[in-house]
Amino acid sequence: MAQREHHKQDRTEVLRVSSKSKPNAVAGAVAGVIREKGRVEIQIIGAGALNQAIKAIAIARGFLAPSGIDIVCIPSFCDVVIDGQERTAIRLVVEARS
Amino acid sequence: MAQREHHKQDRTEVLRVSSKSKPNAVAGAVAGVIREKGRVEIQIIGAGALNQAIKAIAIARGFLAPSGIDIVCIPSFCDVVIDGQERTAIRLVVEARS
Repeated sequence: MAQREHHKQDRTEVLRVSSKSKPNAVAGAVAGVIREKGRVEIQIIGAGALNQAIKAIAIARGFLAPSGIDIVCIPSFCDVVIDGQERTAIRLVVEARS
Repeated sequence: MAQREHHKQDRTEVLRVSSKSKPNAVAGAVAGVIREKGRVEIQIIGAGALNQAIKAIAIARGFLAPSGIDIVCIPSFCDVVIDGQERTAIRLVVEARS
């Protein structure tokens, strides 16, 4: 699964996805937050984790499509501090398209 | 760089990105096609290639933002045939958000 927490500034829910996260489980979490709040942020470090996250978004699209919800994703870079070391992570903002 | 061709059905330009593609070069290609046509499709097989493609989209957002163009990406699965073998690829449709 994915770790869940909230963004300090705007209370967007943040999911942290690792290379061991199961795409189907993350997709369920993404779909749930989108239904509730219309927006979720996924943070990823590394190619393996990004792969799981993008698969999860593709699966979540299928979960949400029957309800007429169409999601898009907006990738950007962000810096995170892990064990005192600054690393570059990828942030994927997932939003329902109006 | 990325291989360029056209989608058979709707003439959307298709970029094939590999794990050896340079994100900056792919970002330039993405930004160019978006400016011209408002839409481009990226096809990827494997986590390394996906990593380069998502970085390229994040970089392309920065190239296009000063022109007021905001791009989003829509991931889905697709089957491709390589050397007679069917494989599952990731398709990222990149669109300018209206």
